[in-house]
Amino acid sequence: MIDLYTAATPNGRKASIMLEEIGLPYTVHAVDFGQKEQKSPAFLAMNPNGRIPVIVDRDNDDYVVFESGAILMYLAEKTGRLMPSELEPRYRVIQWLMFQMGGLGPMMGQANVWFRYFDEKIPAAIHRYQHESRRLFEVLNRQLEGRDYLCDDYSIADIANWCWVARHEWSGVATDGLENLEAWLQRIGERPAVQRGFDIPPRASTRDSVTAARSMLVR
Amino acid sequence: MIDLYTAATPNGRKASIMLEEIGLPYTVHAVDFGQKEQKSPAFLAMNPNGRIPVIVDRDNDDYVVFESGAILMYLAEKTGRLMPSELEPRYRVIQWLMFQMGGLGPMMGQANVWFRYFDEKIPAAIHRYQHESRRLFEVLNRQLEGRDYLCDDYSIADIANWCWVARHEWSGVATDGLENLEAWLQRIGERPAVQRGFDIPPRASTRDSVTAARSMLVR
Repeated sequence: MIDLYTAATPNGRKASIMLEEIGLPYTVHAVDFGQKEQKSPAFLAMNPNGRIPVIVDRDNDDYVVFESGAILMYLAEKTGRLMPSELEPRYRVIQWLMFQMGGLGPMMGQANVWFRYFDEKIPAAIHRYQHESRRLFEVLNRQLEGRDYLCDDYSIADIANWCWVARHEWSGVATDGLENLEAWLQRIGERPAVQRGFDIPPRASTRDSVTAARSMLVR
Repeated sequence: MIDLYTAATPNGRKASIMLEEIGLPYTVHAVDFGQKEQKSPAFLAMNPNGRIPVIVDRDNDDYVVFESGAILMYLAEKTGRLMPSELEPRYRVIQWLMFQMGGLGPMMGQANVWFRYFDEKIPAAIHRYQHESRRLFEVLNRQLEGRDYLCDDYSIADIANWCWVARHEWSGVATDGLENLEAWLQRIGERPAVQRGFDIPPRASTRDSVTAARSMLVR
């Protein structure tokens, strides 16, 4: 059994979609940002950075993993699923996972901050992050030329990047003209496990996402 | 033999410090941002995202790895150095590597953009990224309480985070009052391999870093 501490965000959905894909039993704990639950002593004991998602593997001596990229890799390695075991194809997956962790996620996250959450609208900041996100979409679109998935088979690299690209409208970044990317968005979005994992935790169980995200800006 | 395509940046230094630590022979190729060499067809064939560092492993059928986090893991796994082989200690290292890739690096990088490179000084943007970087320094400082290194032994997690924290003055983020962090900065900075890797490529072989970084903002 896995305990999953999460919220309805792209990083949270990476973990729930992965758990749905591999079919491991898990218990969802919706973390309430409005109550700053992610900054509580109990939560910080699991992840000193105070961020979701976090998993606790009850079948491995309550082993805790935080950072969505590490969770994806841990679950893939634990089950032998969605990440190749052989070195070379595995590092193709890991580098596209890192592309999401270090590039796409932070840039779309900052687009959200300035475009959606920050009270004052600062055109230079909004433009910078929407423009950089679009550039990264174009990189993904080229990588998907002639391919159904980012690397060889469907993998954690697709899950990680898809969870962010799927929220492109929220970030105010268009996918227009990026046919490979749009086909991949749809291809992965049609997977039943992705659809189930996307709705975890159910939106109704968390505070309004804008309110919650704004509250995270005040530290 | 490893070919390393790099520049005098925190992400570039992760690769050169790692190569110095593990003692693999390598050839440095300084990538000239001023000439947009990282956007040349030859470079994009290696990394479609047009970013340094990139390695080519000539002893493994010219296998290419991009994304600094993937490079650190690949070299660690190839040599059995600076990342544990056992699952649980390995994922402790990987999660702190991901903390750097998804958090510390992007936030300090954005602090640099708004504090150093962007012509117009926008206080809200500068404050956001300096403040978030300082918060992440505090997380590292707590993790280092009673520890010499972020995880168990010195690892790629230390290399990745150190390369960014070492440039805290450039980002305008103080380490004052964070005694564990400052001791760790010094402890790692005294390693001969870190000192050698930090100066690769030599600054004189690259354009002035501010000019180069500014040029990257124009896409």
